[in-house]
Amino acid sequence: MKVRNLLNPTLREAPAEAEIMSHQLMYRAGLIRKVAAGMYTYLPLGWRVIKKIEDIIREEMDGIGGQEVMMPVIQPAELWQKTGRWDVYGPEMFRVQDRHGRSFCLGPTHEEIITDLVRAEVRSYKELPLLLYQIQNKYRDERRPRFGLMRGREFIMKDLYSFDRGPEEGAVSYRRMYEAYERVFRRCGLSFRAVEADAGAIGGTGGTHEFMVLADSGEAAVVFCPECAYAANVERAECADEPLCKAAEASPGGVPDEVPEGVPDGAPDGVPDEAAKEAGLQEARGCIPAYEEMETPGVRTIAQLADFCGCEPRELVKALVYIVEDTVAGEAAAAAEVAAADTAAGEGTAADTAADKVVIALMRGDQDLNEVKLANLLEDRLGRVPDLALASPEKIEKLFSCEPGSLGPVGLPERMIAVADRKVMDMVSAVCGANKNDRHLRDVVPGRDFVPDYVGDLKLVAEGDGCPKCGRPLQAARGIEVGQVFNLGYKYSEKLGAAYLDQQGKEQVCYMATCGIGVSRTMAAAIEQNFDDHGIVWPMAIAPYQCIVVPVNVKDKELYETAERIYHELGQEGVEVVLDDRDERPGVKFKDADLVGYPLRITVGAKALAEGQVELLERGSGQMERVAVGDVVRMVRERVRE
Amino acid sequence: MKVRNLLNPTLREAPAEAEIMSHQLMYRAGLIRKVAAGMYTYLPLGWRVIKKIEDIIREEMDGIGGQEVMMPVIQPAELWQKTGRWDVYGPEMFRVQDRHGRSFCLGPTHEEIITDLVRAEVRSYKELPLLLYQIQNKYRDERRPRFGLMRGREFIMKDLYSFDRGPEEGAVSYRRMYEAYERVFRRCGLSFRAVEADAGAIGGTGGTHEFMVLADSGEAAVVFCPECAYAANVERAECADEPLCKAAEASPGGVPDEVPEGVPDGAPDGVPDEAAKEAGLQEARGCIPAYEEMETPGVRTIAQLADFCGCEPRELVKALVYIVEDTVAGEAAAAAEVAAADTAAGEGTAADTAADKVVIALMRGDQDLNEVKLANLLEDRLGRVPDLALASPEKIEKLFSCEPGSLGPVGLPERMIAVADRKVMDMVSAVCGANKNDRHLRDVVPGRDFVPDYVGDLKLVAEGDGCPKCGRPLQAARGIEVGQVFNLGYKYSEKLGAAYLDQQGKEQVCYMATCGIGVSRTMAAAIEQNFDDHGIVWPMAIAPYQCIVVPVNVKDKELYETAERIYHELGQEGVEVVLDDRDERPGVKFKDADLVGYPLRITVGAKALAEGQVELLERGSGQMERVAVGDVVRMVRERVRE
Repeated sequence: MKVRNLLNPTLREAPAEAEIMSHQLMYRAGLIRKVAAGMYTYLPLGWRVIKKIEDIIREEMDGIGGQEVMMPVIQPAELWQKTGRWDVYGPEMFRVQDRHGRSFCLGPTHEEIITDLVRAEVRSYKELPLLLYQIQNKYRDERRPRFGLMRGREFIMKDLYSFDRGPEEGAVSYRRMYEAYERVFRRCGLSFRAVEADAGAIGGTGGTHEFMVLADSGEAAVVFCPECAYAANVERAECADEPLCKAAEASPGGVPDEVPEGVPDGAPDGVPDEAAKEAGLQEARGCIPAYEEMETPGVRTIAQLADFCGCEPRELVKALVYIVEDTVAGEAAAAAEVAAADTAAGEGTAADTAADKVVIALMRGDQDLNEVKLANLLEDRLGRVPDLALASPEKIEKLFSCEPGSLGPVGLPERMIAVADRKVMDMVSAVCGANKNDRHLRDVVPGRDFVPDYVGDLKLVAEGDGCPKCGRPLQAARGIEVGQVFNLGYKYSEKLGAAYLDQQGKEQVCYMATCGIGVSRTMAAAIEQNFDDHGIVWPMAIAPYQCIVVPVNVKDKELYETAERIYHELGQEGVEVVLDDRDERPGVKFKDADLVGYPLRITVGAKALAEGQVELLERGSGQMERVAVGDVVRMVRERVRE
Repeated sequence: MKVRNLLNPTLREAPAEAEIMSHQLMYRAGLIRKVAAGMYTYLPLGWRVIKKIEDIIREEMDGIGGQEVMMPVIQPAELWQKTGRWDVYGPEMFRVQDRHGRSFCLGPTHEEIITDLVRAEVRSYKELPLLLYQIQNKYRDERRPRFGLMRGREFIMKDLYSFDRGPEEGAVSYRRMYEAYERVFRRCGLSFRAVEADAGAIGGTGGTHEFMVLADSGEAAVVFCPECAYAANVERAECADEPLCKAAEASPGGVPDEVPEGVPDGAPDGVPDEAAKEAGLQEARGCIPAYEEMETPGVRTIAQLADFCGCEPRELVKALVYIVEDTVAGEAAAAAEVAAADTAAGEGTAADTAADKVVIALMRGDQDLNEVKLANLLEDRLGRVPDLALASPEKIEKLFSCEPGSLGPVGLPERMIAVADRKVMDMVSAVCGANKNDRHLRDVVPGRDFVPDYVGDLKLVAEGDGCPKCGRPLQAARGIEVGQVFNLGYKYSEKLGAAYLDQQGKEQVCYMATCGIGVSRTMAAAIEQNFDDHGIVWPMAIAPYQCIVVPVNVKDKELYETAERIYHELGQEGVEVVLDDRDERPGVKFKDADLVGYPLRITVGAKALAEGQVELLERGSGQMERVAVGDVVRMVRERVRE
């Protein structure tokens, strides 16, 4: 392709709304253009990248026995009602009625359709395992689409679904998907990490792994152990328990000497025996007097309170208030919610003030709350993983008649849902808010002075916490989630009746797993990981073209003809190449070539050519070398093949 | 791929709703499954066919300098309002609102978006011509989706749009598209014909060609001249004018001798000089007395009337009544129309009875009306090409207080729109209905006794009519429209402001042409053209797999191993091959192989194998031959490459 014929409108500036680098560079390099919020046209070079990523994925999916299918974008409501997700999805789902008034959605995902297909078409164990995949558009009406292709409303996904005879075979499929994804991202030339993750809205039982493209701008925090294989999204990361001696030492009541410091045989390092721990706690708590109210004028924060009491933050309990957002219950409710959300702009609505929608989360003063863990813990209570919104100070004032800094676990209204981190319950006693302004309580004993509705692991793991597998300090990194492997188990197959007859002729429900890659997202993530001040630095495998030939002066006949000849020869050798045949200054051409990010650039200039040479530049390393005209095609071909 | 692992559910019977062969066979051969009316999942084999057709198209579009882009399925209403098509599309357009209440449609086509893109990105004549194409889903909410992939509500299209400096360059682009389409359909292995066609709803100025896959089941009738290059959809086909002598002879008043029988120099064979014709007509009409009413009890049809009068049908004028359907005017109207249409099921609604929505079409008794020509003729009057519905006898009774067989052109209500075929106006005098039951008029002189609002060519051309280019008798065939090339001219570029600066720095509007291929439709059409009693007969180029290897007994170890070895070797040679490894009777396997339509089948059976041979069957010709095991891979490879 010649650049004059190429629709590749490069820009000096990105639009103001482009907040992140990939969004800016995709605009400036002429890869995409916006049509509406979260909806883009892929221009020729952008589309070439997408197709390359798709082809790599396709080969790897075929490689594990996947069969490609194509499913409708428009999906009938009935199927989604069967799994209950018609209501669960709320306003994120684009809904449409046909001319006869029948309801459809624009598929945000395809579990319903694929499971229903297998229900209808698969009969026997002989037909399993079955791995089906699709590469197609999906739709989510994000409240605030942003970050270009990173969070669009129309986006391209690859999803593969496996149907197995049971969990053992399912584990084999899961492992295959996992390994195929490692190959996909490796072949795309990306630096990535697979981490244990939270299952999110897709749900299902068993494990899940996220594939993260590592980039400083990544929206997800991951922790990993540099010593063992452990790696996890902080959303679900766990950490080693601290030895009880330390936790107990930290309590104002002190630790009785007889609490065992060592570790029983067989338990992992640093994790004390449960019964011994409990006995130690009970004994220590026996010494704690009844709790007492203190005047704490002006004390608002954990740091101020620790100062005031002369203790460590780990000796305090903090309380956070969340409101359960009402994203459920049919289209009418969803529509109302949209209207309410639009007018109230995230602020709670009248309905939210109901006490049974208020969640109080209790954390040790030195630890941060993981909202995802909190939401998951509430699934049983609420029948779904709730959307939680941190209550505003105004809302707290209204609910408790005090400031956020004075909240505490004692004497909470009954219908509110109190959830405590297990570390809170391990404290001998604590200082906490009194639910009155300028008042705190001391000598509050968990279990004696307050009993939460739920106790669980709510801690947000941080760098330096112990690895849950080997106890060594975890490291942190940022990443962009581009792929995920899930065990769905029987969640969909049971509801939709996807079953088979086993060897004994007995009906069995299919076991499902799935894996998805955000194709358009992967393109964005690749840029977030690979750019410099001048533009994109594409990995060879997914570059829109592999090489650009730049004649510095198209009016110099010999020079231009040499450039054109090299261009044609490269094309014949199967190299994907463009010729910058524009009558522009070399500086303009170089800038554009850097911006678009062609991995290799051949510059044909008068000076070098007089010596029978051209310049070969590697975009990634910035390495430039003089090369004989007769050698350059071979050299480029070799570097492309590497 | 092994058949046991393949999701290829074959069926003995197609569902009752599958009316046409391609629909039945796609179901039975396990290529598609229905998800909702007009929306399908493509199963693995069906999707392979689609991808092959897409790849052929892609190569040919790239070959003429096309650049592939991908545009959103969801398109903002604003763009469609700019071209006025938001209203024109009516209930055929799927409309959707996002959570903020903004209106979008699911793109039925992409002229708006692509033209807006070029408006924003193209500046200079140097960037033209520009050829952009897309292969993606489109959406039309058909009132009655049917015929499987032939008329779906979600379907796959390839569309290419050219932007040129003017009509001359546009003609070059048009020609390139035309030739590329010839290559596409030839490469797909289809028998097709390019015909002159009607522009339909896409509109624009200048010519248009349809590419028809010829098949007896085709919904379109085409006529073509076996002598010259002329070929046209009957919707728009013209035919040579009959010599006036014949037309005049046919008139009851007879023909004066002095009307010239020959042809003036330079005029095509058989087409008389206009002025001479007019003079002859006037003279002949001079002899016609005032018209007179006749009693014609029981006469309802043209044949009965001709019998009754003792004349030929060509001496009569028939009148047909159409109602202009109200598909226009905003969403509210569209919604109302949907509701009305649903309750009235195609019958006229109250609004239709307005006289200015009634069209009377006048035809000579021996000729059929072409509704498309009639609708096009009314475009000026109505500001758009109207949807016309033939009025029911009840509606006619209400409007005219007589039966359809008694309608005529004399004394029609003023606000009704009278349109006459030009052949009617060439009649000296005619017999026609009196707009009273059991009454007709004779000696009715066109222009004297009635003056239609519009005169034009309304004739439906039929086999045997003269070729408009060379006068020889036309032949008829049936075809399935799978592609179309259009001159759009300035229709979209003007409204959306797609302009460029010419060499003088002056702004000029881009000239546009476009071509589209129904990808999913082409798959269906290929089947309509290529099947037999046993199933599909795929052309090699678009077969889901090129070859199937069938071991007649998978329990016979030597036999199965031979089959498996051939299968592996074929795969290594790049042949797309499946191995039927199912433990089924040979008859079942053969039936399935025939149904799916693999072009080549290798049967590995004990008897032939004892002689070192296998059987090679060509699905198309039915030719079966014994081939040495050692030769079969080479032979298959050669036939695939042919």
